Amino acid sequence: MKIKLGLAIASEKALPSAFVVFRDKLSNSIRKVARLGYDGVELALLDSSQVDLPEVKSLLREYRLELPVISTGQVFADARLWLTHPDPEVRQKTVARLKSLIDLAGEFGAMVNIGRVRGPLDAHDPKASESHFIEGIRECGDYGRTRGVRIILEPVNRYELNFINGVMDGLEILRKIDHPQIFLMPDVFHMNIEDASIVGSLRAAKEAIAYIHFADSNRWAPGDGHLDFPGIINTLSEIGYNGFATLEILPYPDPDTAAARGIKYIRKLI
Amino acid sequence: MKIKLGLAIASEKALPSAFVVFRDKLSNSIRKVARLGYDGVELALLDSSQVDLPEVKSLLREYRLELPVISTGQVFADARLWLTHPDPEVRQKTVARLKSLIDLAGEFGAMVNIGRVRGPLDAHDPKASESHFIEGIRECGDYGRTRGVRIILEPVNRYELNFINGVMDGLEILRKIDHPQIFLMPDVFHMNIEDASIVGSLRAAKEAIAYIHFADSNRWAPGDGHLDFPGIINTLSEIGYNGFATLEILPYPDPDTAAARGIKYIRKLI
Repeated sequence: MKIKLGLAIASEKALPSAFVVFRDKLSNSIRKVARLGYDGVELALLDSSQVDLPEVKSLLREYRLELPVISTGQVFADARLWLTHPDPEVRQKTVARLKSLIDLAGEFGAMVNIGRVRGPLDAHDPKASESHFIEGIRECGDYGRTRGVRIILEPVNRYELNFINGVMDGLEILRKIDHPQIFLMPDVFHMNIEDASIVGSLRAAKEAIAYIHFADSNRWAPGDGHLDFPGIINTLSEIGYNGFATLEILPYPDPDTAAARGIKYIRKLI
Repeated sequence: MKIKLGLAIASEKALPSAFVVFRDKLSNSIRKVARLGYDGVELALLDSSQVDLPEVKSLLREYRLELPVISTGQVFADARLWLTHPDPEVRQKTVARLKSLIDLAGEFGAMVNIGRVRGPLDAHDPKASESHFIEGIRECGDYGRTRGVRIILEPVNRYELNFINGVMDGLEILRKIDHPQIFLMPDVFHMNIEDASIVGSLRAAKEAIAYIHFADSNRWAPGDGHLDFPGIINTLSEIGYNGFATLEILPYPDPDTAAARGIKYIRKLI
């Protein structure tokens, strides 16, 4: 099995709800991620202007790091843009923002994640929310296709959003979306709350998984909680997964310790 | 080991945030709980007027059910009263409301839980919040002592409150509260998110545990998620726990199925 290890980072301006271990100038964090021995870095971005393209390209080349994914939780949490929004103008702005991040991802051969930016389900009109979401993500998928960028849908637990919580929910909506550019990215922290069986859902989603987030049950580094990472990694191996597992973790007990402990623990299991 | 099984219920007026399987006239639910074979019923109350004392006493006698706990989440969620509130008048009203529930609990030999009603920690003045909380819960403890009612503190996960999330946090604050009438009530659903080791924390809290909530990892009935209930029950046995384990679960796939499935699954393990 060839699982590559990534670490999710954000710029120094990211809100606390960006669940990343490093929040600093991207160039500083990229250097630290490389020194810790990770294979890649995921950027949690608010907009594409946060990335100095020549600088980041040159750093990645210098440190032989990949940039597998640009994630978009800040577009939801900070810019207050989302795909299920009842106002068509906000939906349009959301898609425009995502397209600019897809352009950026195209520069790196990266994917773009759709997590909380899909937005909540309106309890009074869930069908409208779902159809706005499907329309928006398909537009992203079409656009991604022109840039060679895959779109990856991340189920998140009930407390963060009331829409697409478990991996099985993700699979169900993927069937409705039915788009060759759109895949699934499970996060085992969310799965611990939502999925009746973590390894069972990973097996069921086998064909759809293009990326995965690792955090332990308490969102600390893998090894600091009680998730069965040996079992999870065996299952990923069994289903032939060979992409990135990226640590999206809280900076506890402190950022450097968390980032170092996580890779040490997971490397032993791979 | 003698673990008794309870089921948490609320009146028909309870908010959706009362995580109970039955929300109906209490008399209807008590009959159903008895028929399902539970040993007791926990009442999630907004105020003591929701209980018709002679009726409930007579039903419990008729069905040989215990009433181990009155829980108070609705006092927080519906009445908007909590112990850490910056306004002393609100704090006073909270304690008054809790005292009236302690009076009611005294009628049944029940305990009173302090979950979300402790209130949030003020990020700008956490010391003040903690000291308001300690003062308030001690007053409840003193009052409970006069009625033979124990007060039980329930750690809840980070998404529901930012104060006392894990069982280890609960133990730490119990030491500060230092009151003979005040104990701990873990909830394994919350522990799955917060505690690095569920059985490790149960062992550490051995002396303090007076009650426990059971729900599976997805808050469905035990057996419907991936928590290791055989391991949890073995640990409770090992530490000599002989109180109630009460199912506080979501009504999925429907209330009757959830309540029946949960007791069937747990009875097999005890």
